[in-house]
Order: sequence, then C-alpha cells, then structure tokens
Amino acid sequence: MNENIHADRPTFVTHLECSLTGERYEADRLHGLSKAGRPLLVRYDLEALGQAVSRDAIAARPTDLWRWRELLPVRRTANIVSLGEIETPLVPIPLSGGPGAIVKDEGRLPTGSFKARGLVMAVAMARELGVTRIAMPTNGNAGAALAAYAARCGIETIVLCPEETPEVNVREIAAQGARVYRVNGQIDDCGAIVGRGAAEGLWFDFSTLKEPYRIEGKKTMGLELAAQFGWELPDAIFYPTGGGTGLIGMWKAFDELERLGWIGSKRPRMYAVQAAGCAPIVRAYEAGEEHAERWDNAATVAAGIRVPRAVGDFLILRAVRESGGRALAVGDPAILAAVDDAARRDGLLLCPEGGATLAAYRQAIVDGLVDPEERTVLFNCATGLKYPMPPATDTLDRHGAIDLASL
Amino acid sequence: MNENIHADRPTFVTHLECSLTGERYEADRLHGLSKAGRPLLVRYDLEALGQAVSRDAIAARPTDLWRWRELLPVRRTANIVSLGEIETPLVPIPLSGGPGAIVKDEGRLPTGSFKARGLVMAVAMARELGVTRIAMPTNGNAGAALAAYAARCGIETIVLCPEETPEVNVREIAAQGARVYRVNGQIDDCGAIVGRGAAEGLWFDFSTLKEPYRIEGKKTMGLELAAQFGWELPDAIFYPTGGGTGLIGMWKAFDELERLGWIGSKRPRMYAVQAAGCAPIVRAYEAGEEHAERWDNAATVAAGIRVPRAVGDFLILRAVRESGGRALAVGDPAILAAVDDAARRDGLLLCPEGGATLAAYRQAIVDGLVDPEERTVLFNCATGLKYPMPPATDTLDRHGAIDLASL
Repeated sequence: MNENIHADRPTFVTHLECSLTGERYEADRLHGLSKAGRPLLVRYDLEALGQAVSRDAIAARPTDLWRWRELLPVRRTANIVSLGEIETPLVPIPLSGGPGAIVKDEGRLPTGSFKARGLVMAVAMARELGVTRIAMPTNGNAGAALAAYAARCGIETIVLCPEETPEVNVREIAAQGARVYRVNGQIDDCGAIVGRGAAEGLWFDFSTLKEPYRIEGKKTMGLELAAQFGWELPDAIFYPTGGGTGLIGMWKAFDELERLGWIGSKRPRMYAVQAAGCAPIVRAYEAGEEHAERWDNAATVAAGIRVPRAVGDFLILRAVRESGGRALAVGDPAILAAVDDAARRDGLLLCPEGGATLAAYRQAIVDGLVDPEERTVLFNCATGLKYPMPPATDTLDRHGAIDLASL
Repeated sequence: MNENIHADRPTFVTHLECSLTGERYEADRLHGLSKAGRPLLVRYDLEALGQAVSRDAIAARPTDLWRWRELLPVRRTANIVSLGEIETPLVPIPLSGGPGAIVKDEGRLPTGSFKARGLVMAVAMARELGVTRIAMPTNGNAGAALAAYAARCGIETIVLCPEETPEVNVREIAAQGARVYRVNGQIDDCGAIVGRGAAEGLWFDFSTLKEPYRIEGKKTMGLELAAQFGWELPDAIFYPTGGGTGLIGMWKAFDELERLGWIGSKRPRMYAVQAAGCAPIVRAYEAGEEHAERWDNAATVAAGIRVPRAVGDFLILRAVRESGGRALAVGDPAILAAVDDAARRDGLLLCPEGGATLAAYRQAIVDGLVDPEERTVLFNCATGLKYPMPPATDTLDRHGAIDLASL
C-alpha cells in the first residue's frame, strides 16, 4: 500500500570511506570499522541523485522514513524491513520550554525510540549482505529495535545489556525474540564481549558506529527536520549524546542536502547534551581536545547517554564546533525536574534523555547561549512510558462517604 | 508550521441528535447525554462540506488527524490543543497473523493510545464551550490522554480508576497533572461517582459517550483507513470493544464519507472483540438483543475492554449487524499467546487488547468467518510498552569465563 516500501527506486551509493583518514572502501560488501579503527561513512553520487529526484518529489510521497530512499543505502526493495517508521511530530512545549522550544518526539517510532531509525537501516543492509546472526551491546532501546527488526526477517540476535539497564528494556528485547543477557559492567564492557565473539566469527558486531549503516538511518532525523521546517533548518538543536550517531548523522544529512541544493548553507547550532555523571564529550570539548577519554564510574538516571567512550568522539566534537554549538552537561536533579515539568505543564512525557535536552536548553537560555525566540529543536529520543514514574496511590472507598468537593 | 492546526478552516456542524430517538439538540452548547439517556451524535451540512473541500485537497495536507478539520466539530483554530496526532501506520503481521493481517498501530499516538483521538477532540470542544473542570472514570489510557491535553490548556482534571488499573497508567495520569484516585470497584462504579459530582455541579462528566465529541475524534480512525486504503475500505475490521466509541465512530465516518461521495457503498465487516471474562456485547449479539445487560464479575488481563456496561451498546450491535460482522469473545490465554507471538515473530509488541483482536482474527479464520487473503485491519489500541512483560534474567560475569558460542 505504501509506495515508499513497495516501489523500486534508483540507488546512488558509490563507496564508503574512513571518517578519519578518508581511505576508500567498496560498497556492497560487509564492513565493520575502517583499518584505522574508525567509523565508515557511506558516500553517494549526489549529482546523479539530484538529477533523478527532486525535493518536491520526495515531499509528495508518504511521509515515512522510506520516502528518502534515494539518499539511503538499501539497494533492493525486497530487503526493506518495516514496522511503520513514521515521520515524528514536532510538539511545541511553550509552558515548560518557552516560545521557541519544539520537541521532536522520537518516542513515536517502532519500539518507542529513535534507535528504530538506525536499526531498520542496519538490519535491512545486514539482510542485503547475507548476515544471519547479530550481536549488540545496548543500554536498552537499541537492543529493542534490533530485536524487533531482526525477528521480522529471521535474523538471529544476541543482546548484551549493562546490569543497570531498566527491566522494561530487557523484557522488551526478550519479548521480541532476541536472546538477551545482563553483564556486570558498563556498555563498553558489553561491547568488549561482543567484539570477542565477532573476532571468533560467532556473529556480526552491531555496536554503535561499528557497522556503517545505522548512521544512514539516523541521518533521516536531519532530512525530516529540513522537510518539516520548509527546507530552512531551525536555529539550534539539542541532542542527547551517548554514542552520538544521530548528531553525526544529522550533520552528514545537512551536508548532503546542501550539496544537492535542497537547503542553503545555514546550519543549526548543535548542542551535544550529556549527563553530569557521564560527560566525556563535554570534558573533551572544554579542554579543546579532538578525542574524548573514557569517563570512569559513569552514573546517571539517563541510561541512554551513559556511554563512557564513543568511537565517533571526534566526529561529534567536529560537528559541534563547526556549527558554533557547545557540549553541555546537566545533573540528574535538573533532568528529573525537566521531565516532571514538561509532563505536568505541557502534557508531554519525556524520557530522561529528552529531559536532559530540556534541562540543558533552559540552562542555555539562562547562560545567554540561546535566545528564547529562536526556533530550537529538543530531541526526545524515546517514549517516557518506558521509564519509572513517581507512585500515585490515593484510593477511594465506593461503599463509604466520599467528599466529592475535596477531590 | 503545520497548516492543519494553524490555518482557519470552515466548519459545518448544524446540530446534534439523540442516537436513539433522533431528537434534535443545538450546536455550540454544552451537552451530556440526550433526554433519553443516550449518546448525542454530531451532524454536519455534508452538502456544503463537499462543495468546500475535496478528498484530494485533504489528502494533500499534512497527514495528521487535523487534516480532517471540515469533518470535525472544533470551530475556532485557537481552541485546537495538539500533542502531534500523527496518522497511525498500517503494519502487516504476516508471520503471526497471515497474508491479509494488517495492524493499525494506534500506540503511536500521544500518550501511547487511541484514546488520544477522542480526548484531543473532547478537550478542544470543552475549551471552546468554556469548561474549566473535568472528571472521568477510566481503565487507564483515556485518563492519560485527558490529563495530557487538559494540562496543556489549563483545564483541571479529576480521574477515577478501578482498583485493578495497571500502576503505570495511574502514574502516567498523575505525572501529566491530573488528580487521580483508585476506587475499589469497576469502571462503572467510578462512573457513578463521577456522575454524582457532575450532578452537584462540581465538574463536567467526560465518561465514554456521555459528552458528544470523543466519538468525533475516534471517527478519524475510519477517515484515515479510507485514505490509507486509497478510498476503498478494507474487507474486515477487528476492533477491541469496551465502550465501543471507536467502532461507532468508524461506522459514522464511513456513512459520512459515502454521503460525500468520497467512498462507495462497500463496508468492512465489523468484528467487535471482547474478552471471555467480560463479554456483554457478545452475549447480547448471540441472544439477538438490541441492548446488552451488565456483565457481573468482569475479569480479564485486557483492562481496556473490561467494561461491564456500555451506554452505546445498541449502536455497537447495530453497526456489527449492519456490516455483516460479528461480536466475538476470546479468552485470556489466547490473548497472551497472540501478544507473545506477534512480538516474537513479527517484532510488533501489541497491548493485550490488540492481542485480543489478533486472537479473535485467528479464531475467525479457523471458523471460516474470514478468508486469510482478505484485507483485514486489526486495531492495536495502545503501545505494548505499558503492559507487563515476562521477566528475562540471565546475567553474565564479565570477569569470568563466558562460553560465547553458547549465547
């Protein structure tokens, strides 16, 4: 019914290249990291692409992620695996945020998080390249998205979570057909185990940025923003940054769109938001470093950004600096207060990572980094329903006398 | 940014009428039930509407619920309250359902359920008509949607839940700024308390079908299906039926669309799905009755359809019979097995009520009521993430020897 996933479209991938050295890698082959140990980026023949399709033609298609087919790596329509990747809505939060604050609510995607964007693409490419067994370290949401898409096309999955991963995430992953284990450590400890198994040939390694296609899926956040804002990007973007795939992906999207002539040279200021208890990118940003050292004893309520070490650190830092943005850290109390306030006043239940972007935004306004009237997008990366909420326990006795006026 | 909620549109409401007697009621006034104690239905000048807007014009707008403005009751654009009411995706479930099985995934709406459709409309109308205090009995999801929309426009809300309401729903309602209480009884016991307070003038009663606008919001499920299926309706619809607002609303939508000439006379067979532990509509259907008696000692894992008595019973039964459909009951074990199977094989986590539609569909195929090749829509009314999932507890010791090949 949806032409985006049923009609064939021309594709334009020419090759991949190392994000650090620029070394070239062949398309249509299975790749992990580059020889330099860094993420690979997918490159397209943008000239041919621009001749084959216009932004207006894309805007006229159904509004899901697959409308961007020509800008995505999947070659064969039959390899598309879909659970309904809708375009996520922009929801203003005037009361808890202010006149310019707009939440992009990624919790509406399949499995309730923006991880669906990256994983739907990576799983389709794994299918295209013949992968039958995948393992992944995850703080929860990525594992849920992997499990769902892989289940749907019969790929076997093994998912490893840090011991502090919320129970609901672990159960969701298991319900969707993956074999899931907790590990007594952080996400990079899980990643080390996945890496060992990959080296032994037991599975393909789906760690953040260790395969090249999740970033292409995440890129669609930038493509969507361009279309939703009428091909003129917002003034600023606050993005909760763990592995940073989305921030890197949006930056890549903006570059591709400008080369196509679909947007101008104006860029949003990119604010990478981390938790005060795990802020390796902020520390590197402030020290003027190009790479970030591991953050020891990481701890925050925002599990999705509890990432002590990011393999794409230099790409995040580069995008933040080029854009004129900043890397910002916020404490757990400010995160929880922001979640509470957005729900209570604007009726929008954010995840803790989404709460972190709102908390950082409010602080940025106080600090004069952002003007309240500027059009500012705050990413809510998952539905707030996955996270613990404070109890509410008053009970009325229907057989007793209830003072209705006091309710 | 979204013209649907920022541009003014002509409106076409002429009056309301009693669904039982046809008695006429004035538009633009606050109404509860009719004098006969039955739901009021909103009527439009469809001739003028058809001259003012075409189905193609609507199809060209952004694809959210508010694209249907001319077919909805809200007069003033400023009264629209929105949290991003996207068009929900159609997700095939070939492995757990079969070749014709398509889930309409309503869990993607604000507050994670289809209740957002009805409540966004009812709250906008309450605002338009000057209501400042609302009370509602709810099994959970309707209360969450009411709380969110009312919070957003400063309307005070009191929400009463049966004692068995899942904790996550109660907490969500409280987080979104409502005052919420549990009551030691069923939803109609909660409704009785709400009714008493309304009679005392303490609040406006937002019980299912007791105000006329929720049904207009739910109607958009039928409007969307028509557009998504290219203006030719599917062969069958399985709908989890508690109060039945959605089923009644879709039936009304199809009627209005045919009068407009936007669809033909073909209708889907409507299957009202209930739980074996609370099946008043099924009992009345099988007995050939026009009204349904209260179901005592209601009990099912699918809390959303644990509704012992529906004020719109005769409208549900009428639509089911006119359509050539049926009222069907399924047991809790079949519901839970369907939820598990859809997640494990198709990667789609249904809510228990969505599981009920899949269970009923499978049984209907076995019973020869539905052909597996028929295009059949199964409503998943809420995100499965709100509901308990089985635990998954294996833990690996990163300091120990892990047999990777056994994972």
